[in-house]
Amino acid sequence: MNDFDVITGREIGVGHNFSRRVATRFQDVNDLPDDIKTAILGVQEKAGFIPNVFLVLARRPDEFRAFFAYHDALMNREGLTQAEKEMIIVATSANNDCLYCVVAHGAVLRIRAKNALIADQVAINYRKADISDRHKAMLDFALKVSNDAGVLGDADFETLRSHGFKDEEIWDIAGITAFFGLSNRMANLTAMRPNDEFYAMGR
Amino acid sequence: MNDFDVITGREIGVGHNFSRRVATRFQDVNDLPDDIKTAILGVQEKAGFIPNVFLVLARRPDEFRAFFAYHDALMNREGLTQAEKEMIIVATSANNDCLYCVVAHGAVLRIRAKNALIADQVAINYRKADISDRHKAMLDFALKVSNDAGVLGDADFETLRSHGFKDEEIWDIAGITAFFGLSNRMANLTAMRPNDEFYAMGR
Amino acid sequence: MNDFDVITGREIGVGHNFSRRVATRFQDVNDLPDDIKTAILGVQEKAGFIPNVFLVLARRPDEFRAFFAYHDALMNREGLTQAEKEMIIVATSANNDCLYCVVAHGAVLRIRAKNALIADQVAINYRKADISDRHKAMLDFALKVSNDAGVLGDADFETLRSHGFKDEEIWDIAGITAFFGLSNRMANLTAMRPNDEFYAMGR
Amino acid sequence: MNDFDVITGREIGVGHNFSRRVATRFQDVNDLPDDIKTAILGVQEKAGFIPNVFLVLARRPDEFRAFFAYHDALMNREGLTQAEKEMIIVATSANNDCLYCVVAHGAVLRIRAKNALIADQVAINYRKADISDRHKAMLDFALKVSNDAGVLGDADFETLRSHGFKDEEIWDIAGITAFFGLSNRMANLTAMRPNDEFYAMGR
Amino acid sequence: MNDFDVITGREIGVGHNFSRRVATRFQDVNDLPDDIKTAILGVQEKAGFIPNVFLVLARRPDEFRAFFAYHDALMNREGLTQAEKEMIIVATSANNDCLYCVVAHGAVLRIRAKNALIADQVAINYRKADISDRHKAMLDFALKVSNDAGVLGDADFETLRSHGFKDEEIWDIAGITAFFGLSNRMANLTAMRPNDEFYAMGR
Amino acid sequence: MNDFDVITGREIGVGHNFSRRVATRFQDVNDLPDDIKTAILGVQEKAGFIPNVFLVLARRPDEFRAFFAYHDALMNREGLTQAEKEMIIVATSANNDCLYCVVAHGAVLRIRAKNALIADQVAINYRKADISDRHKAMLDFALKVSNDAGVLGDADFETLRSHGFKDEEIWDIAGITAFFGLSNRMANLTAMRPNDEFYAMGR
Repeated sequence: MNDFDVITGREIGVGHNFSRRVATRFQDVNDLPDDIKTAILGVQEKAGFIPNVFLVLARRPDEFRAFFAYHDALMNREGLTQAEKEMIIVATSANNDCLYCVVAHGAVLRIRAKNALIADQVAINYRKADISDRHKAMLDFALKVSNDAGVLGDADFETLRSHGFKDEEIWDIAGITAFFGLSNRMANLTAMRPNDEFYAMGR
Repeated sequence: MNDFDVITGREIGVGHNFSRRVATRFQDVNDLPDDIKTAILGVQEKAGFIPNVFLVLARRPDEFRAFFAYHDALMNREGLTQAEKEMIIVATSANNDCLYCVVAHGAVLRIRAKNALIADQVAINYRKADISDRHKAMLDFALKVSNDAGVLGDADFETLRSHGFKDEEIWDIAGITAFFGLSNRMANLTAMRPNDEFYAMGR
Repeated sequence: MNDFDVITGREIGVGHNFSRRVATRFQDVNDLPDDIKTAILGVQEKAGFIPNVFLVLARRPDEFRAFFAYHDALMNREGLTQAEKEMIIVATSANNDCLYCVVAHGAVLRIRAKNALIADQVAINYRKADISDRHKAMLDFALKVSNDAGVLGDADFETLRSHGFKDEEIWDIAGITAFFGLSNRMANLTAMRPNDEFYAMGR
Repeated sequence: MNDFDVITGREIGVGHNFSRRVATRFQDVNDLPDDIKTAILGVQEKAGFIPNVFLVLARRPDEFRAFFAYHDALMNREGLTQAEKEMIIVATSANNDCLYCVVAHGAVLRIRAKNALIADQVAINYRKADISDRHKAMLDFALKVSNDAGVLGDADFETLRSHGFKDEEIWDIAGITAFFGLSNRMANLTAMRPNDEFYAMGR
Repeated sequence: MNDFDVITGREIGVGHNFSRRVATRFQDVNDLPDDIKTAILGVQEKAGFIPNVFLVLARRPDEFRAFFAYHDALMNREGLTQAEKEMIIVATSANNDCLYCVVAHGAVLRIRAKNALIADQVAINYRKADISDRHKAMLDFALKVSNDAGVLGDADFETLRSHGFKDEEIWDIAGITAFFGLSNRMANLTAMRPNDEFYAMGR
Repeated sequence: MNDFDVITGREIGVGHNFSRRVATRFQDVNDLPDDIKTAILGVQEKAGFIPNVFLVLARRPDEFRAFFAYHDALMNREGLTQAEKEMIIVATSANNDCLYCVVAHGAVLRIRAKNALIADQVAINYRKADISDRHKAMLDFALKVSNDAGVLGDADFETLRSHGFKDEEIWDIAGITAFFGLSNRMANLTAMRPNDEFYAMGR
């Protein structure tokens, strides 16, 4: 077995070795287009393993390409720091009961924030986390976008502005929340599993 | 004033002519990249007007491109009918209190289903709509993906299969729900307005 | 078949002609008392058709008489405008998932407000509707009466007074909300169908 | 001071004697029409005191007349027993946080059921009350009508029929729930106070 | 049959005499340790009957001892008055749908407050009760501890301090709420029945 | 500074060293009774540090003693395994947004289950955790006890029995849930902080 086997899913979901499992639904992936195979092998080389989100979403190449293009458009923008973006992802994904996103992005948050404790704090109760009031206001807004966007009003914008957020950053907070809301739902649909490697990263 | 003026937003939100307004937040759009301008003018030529979602999202070209690539990947797939896809959009967008998406996709649903009444029925209470039990099960599942994806289980898949849905169609239902959940949140963030033209289309 | 047939329900729920259907439960109506028959024929002459709520509630003449007496007492009062009263009905009926009331009173709202768009806006998300802040405060209060009347307090009255509402008008808002809350529940109990004619009226 | 003073509200809300207070909002009632005065004095003669709901609603004679006509139409019907009707009122009014209705109809329930304990049981948690499974099913349905009528379906009717309820009785359960839902909202709007006499009746 | 029979549960749940029943689950209690038997007989001598909570929890002597030690630590402290403590218990137990605790502590509240009406008012809607604004703020806080303790913040403490509560009393409010939250859950688990004697005490 | 300083709280909440902080409210602890000091030093010797719950609750010696007596009565019982008990604590504490309990008992769960991944899985979405259906049923029941104990019925007991749980074990599940519900509320009241040591234990 080699990387190609893994990518094409021949090893997925086999046996009792939970750590190799990718998802409990939609497990079989057939031959992948070259660009997706190349993208996945690139991630593997950089991270040392292939995050399962790549393997699960690769089932649908067009959606895969759009998903990661959207992801990159939001995550590569200037404005919010990488740690701030990951805090938003972890807090809203926990609120959406998404195991994959909390574990995977919790790892990234610990690394970006250089803080071994922050991910668990933000996931479980960000109001009790060792973060600034500015960041708590950012997460209050993200949770409101996630849970009740229909009542968003000018007062919500004013609150964020009073904490120094610019309008483009407000869009970023909402955009990341909305995009990972999509991701959370796809992960829960597919029962996507976090790779074992994520749990201990950055601790 | 010409189309270009509209696209670049110079006319957006001006005066009391609600029907020209696009959004009450993030109203200014500057020069657009050529590919986005071309895309928008193409839609205008086909529809007779520019749906506001294009103008609002054009503020961020990379996200615009990814958004519509994702949209097309889901909406152009074989499997579910166009009317079924629009029913999912209307039901979940109503649940998310998204005025833009209910009005715009309600119009498309009426046209696709050749049914002047179905959009209002699905938006307000799909359980009382003149649709089949199969479609009610489809919408039950979509609402569950939208509101509580963390509890999705094998029994939900079995219910859909008993109504004849294939696994790829189940992914489609969830994918459309998840994608328009993103769209609903961005529309509520920006206070995106449905174009006046949508309200009466297909009635 | 003539009007009398319709009133006595002999044609109700027959065949696939949805537009003739009144309700999917409690469909049979027997001979009606003269005063109710006269009332219904009067409405038919004025509207051109018999709104289904008359046929469904006619099953119980005493409740029918009290229902419309209550309706008229609230709707014929001076104070709130007819458009304001219909906005309250549409917003709270949407919140109660009542297809009949949203479609029927949405039609009346469009006519009373001489506005083709307002009913859909108020039904889906009144916070995004093209209405004044005063009317949004009116609907905030109506929704609170509908969903959580037990926490109503003096501050709620003060908010409405600051928008110029008098105490009798506050009673009107709550009374209309409470009465149509009753109506919504009876319509959902009986699976009352909006007449097809309502959907396009006033657009 | 005499009865007429009480009826016209001159004594209402005066002093610290809570037991005389009727409501903390909309307290003043002016001269009453003769038919309403007669009705109220009739109740007083029968009950020994004037239940505050009469005084509060008398502020609006037309609504008063319709309210009690509706009340009588439902409560005087054959079918459900008086105790069953009062159980429905107490359970749904408690769910709606309505102090007046729980206390006043709790008294009536104790008397009708000849059971000193049943009202508190039904108000606090009817699932733990000393009532039959049939009555628990009746109250399950009433609560569903009260809280989520939009999802009522044929299965709910089947459940009630399996417990021996006829269709007209199902209408009664829902009608009483819907009517007292109106009453609960008006009582909470007006901060209507239960008369002190009710608390101990039937214990 | 004698007291000992009752304590050991031999008479529990027998026959149709509801008033003797203790719980519908976990009904059998075997021989009790001497200290618990002594404690129970002491309560019986003082109250004239054995509150069922003693018999139900006696099933597990170690938990029994800790439960009542915790109870006494909170209830015997100086600070809040006995009536205030009972108001907290009644309001939060009603919110937790706990029949036993509302009925039993409602009786104690009536006695402690020397007020025959207060228990029903606090149980059904404390916002409408004849209590001070200070006590309403106390119960607002207790309900927040009960329903959503994760969002408690400094502002909640400030509100209570503005009503004159000291920090130790704030702990008392929360501690009593938390402890009776445990008690409410155990009572609902065991279907613990209030003794008939409680219903009329203090009226 | 020595252990005694820590115990008496002189070092608590001082400076920016978050890891030494115990709670952000009720921070000062005065001299402790000897039995509590001895108990705390015993824990310190065994664990290598003093879990903050001991320092926070030591503020009230009588409640401290009852709390740990109750804790020990439940946690030292035969029946459920230690890992099962910790799963219940982690799942319900996460549901109650209790940072302290999830982090501290997550550590214990990893150790008891000899599984580095299980605590995060159970905290975020136990339905997706690598645990048996029997354990998912156990946690379904625990969450129901935590969130809606008033609707517990015989069917819930039957479900657990079908998974092999005995009645005493059902009491254990509910008892642990109820007791840690108390603990969760006290931790959120006091803003109790998990010791830094817990986060990485057992990974």
